[in-house]
Amino acid sequence: MNRITSIFGIKHPIIQGSMVWCSGWRLASAVSNAGGLGLLGAGSMHPEILREHIHRCRMATRHAFGVNIPLMYPQIEKIMQVVVDEGVRIVFTSAGNPKTWTGWLKEHGVTVVHVVSSSRFAVKAEEAGVDAIVAEGFEAGGHNGCEETTTFCLIPAVRAVTTLPLIAAGGIATGEGILAVQALGADGVQIGTRFALTEESSASEVFKDYCLHLKEGETKLLLKSLSPVRLVRGNFQRAVADAEALGATKDELRILLSRGRAKRGIFGGDLEEGEIEIGQASALLNEKGVQTVAEVMRELIDGYYWACEALLAGLCEHMEVR
Amino acid sequence: MNRITSIFGIKHPIIQGSMVWCSGWRLASAVSNAGGLGLLGAGSMHPEILREHIHRCRMATRHAFGVNIPLMYPQIEKIMQVVVDEGVRIVFTSAGNPKTWTGWLKEHGVTVVHVVSSSRFAVKAEEAGVDAIVAEGFEAGGHNGCEETTTFCLIPAVRAVTTLPLIAAGGIATGEGILAVQALGADGVQIGTRFALTEESSASEVFKDYCLHLKEGETKLLLKSLSPVRLVRGNFQRAVADAEALGATKDELRILLSRGRAKRGIFGGDLEEGEIEIGQASALLNEKGVQTVAEVMRELIDGYYWACEALLAGLCEHMEVR
Repeated sequence: MNRITSIFGIKHPIIQGSMVWCSGWRLASAVSNAGGLGLLGAGSMHPEILREHIHRCRMATRHAFGVNIPLMYPQIEKIMQVVVDEGVRIVFTSAGNPKTWTGWLKEHGVTVVHVVSSSRFAVKAEEAGVDAIVAEGFEAGGHNGCEETTTFCLIPAVRAVTTLPLIAAGGIATGEGILAVQALGADGVQIGTRFALTEESSASEVFKDYCLHLKEGETKLLLKSLSPVRLVRGNFQRAVADAEALGATKDELRILLSRGRAKRGIFGGDLEEGEIEIGQASALLNEKGVQTVAEVMRELIDGYYWACEALLAGLCEHMEVR
Repeated sequence: MNRITSIFGIKHPIIQGSMVWCSGWRLASAVSNAGGLGLLGAGSMHPEILREHIHRCRMATRHAFGVNIPLMYPQIEKIMQVVVDEGVRIVFTSAGNPKTWTGWLKEHGVTVVHVVSSSRFAVKAEEAGVDAIVAEGFEAGGHNGCEETTTFCLIPAVRAVTTLPLIAAGGIATGEGILAVQALGADGVQIGTRFALTEESSASEVFKDYCLHLKEGETKLLLKSLSPVRLVRGNFQRAVADAEALGATKDELRILLSRGRAKRGIFGGDLEEGEIEIGQASALLNEKGVQTVAEVMRELIDGYYWACEALLAGLCEHMEVR
């Protein structure tokens, strides 16, 4: 998995997904210090707050880090200017047209990565001139694609249409998962859910504890008529499901969502009225408490090598009887 | 992947999923003759038709084959009696409680495998005494679980709760996919979509051609209020979606489904009024025409070894710089 490490100048091809209200300077710098790529999540920051996080992240790590920018962000021009003014070298863009900003960012010396949920959008991102692609499957938490293609089907589909470095996302929480997407053609991974629940994540401890006890089937892709989001079952999720079942209009759903619900749920820990976004992989973390980023990175890397060894042992056995 | 091959006495740990109206003696015997495990699909056969397929399958192959029986089948007692009378040694059960028939089948010397969509049901299957488990993810075609857990998240979750031999299903159509689920902890694979579209499948040529040209996002999980099924977009699928949006009752949906729609779509090739069930993996097969089972098996096995070699080459490179 060396194309990803060399593009970003990092040790391990593990990128921290930038989940809203989780991904400040503490999380990003911890991931970068542990040999991965930390990302500041601009999606839940005013431009001047982002500037402060860039400063603090730089003080906390001498390693590379980046910023994730959802292109639908209302103050997008200001955010882009902050990123370039502050000399950020790596930007991940998502939720929008990659043609709008990729050229401008690259003129300013920025390495640009775009997040897609289909091979069609991967082709568009390559045409826009991005340096790498994140392909994110249906099992991922938070905002998600309309086509519901899972990581297992998406990674080979994207691999088939582009030779760009490819980062797999959605459902990856273990070293075995890293090996599995590598087998499917990915060069690296982006991990959201697992890092959102670490000590260094700025999410509420209530949110972390709640998400670390979820079982299979306890997240669901909702808000499909507006923009699909994977949410945990809860009062807010029920409100959305009820509104959709009653045929709520897009405007009505937007009003339901516009009340700072994600901040209330993830940052505030309000499990009743807040929006709780997390991926299906949360159900794989039931045995674990809140861990530090260093512990998670160590488990991912050790788990990856153990999985490689187990696979090799099985292969050797199989070769003998082939 | 040797636990699966030794249980069934087969060469490769590749099981052909038994899709209704696809899986007669021609398909099952071809898969068994190519070193995998063919399964006759009792779900679309009257008991005496199944008996005939067992006879013909036995004439067409000297290798092991099995029968898949959906436990909700209306004439389940008769089907079970046919299977035991005819000395079938391998039965895959699905869509029902594994406790009802597993003990009886095992008393008659049958190896029993149960299909699940969650770790909770995997535990129940193990308690019922099955010999192996198929865990099938959200991306699979046809009948599907309510929890929408994808193959990527399901396989490690099931692996964590049982030591039984584990067969992964859902989204697997290539050798790379086989390697990926092996990394996630599976001992073998069940492949439906790819075999449903082979020359030996009894599905209509119209159905095969149509499914071999599907793009990502062109299948969808529907009928969720009744029993989730992955369908191709089409008139029938639109009828179901419209009925659900209008709040159709379970009885109304049942009526919509009870008109032999699957036979009409899959076996009859009626793309307008028939039900077209297929998995997300169909979008990975766009370059391929209708292939024989032998060609598919060859591609799966060669692809698996190429993927192993590619992974090994990458690992060796990475080890050097570790």
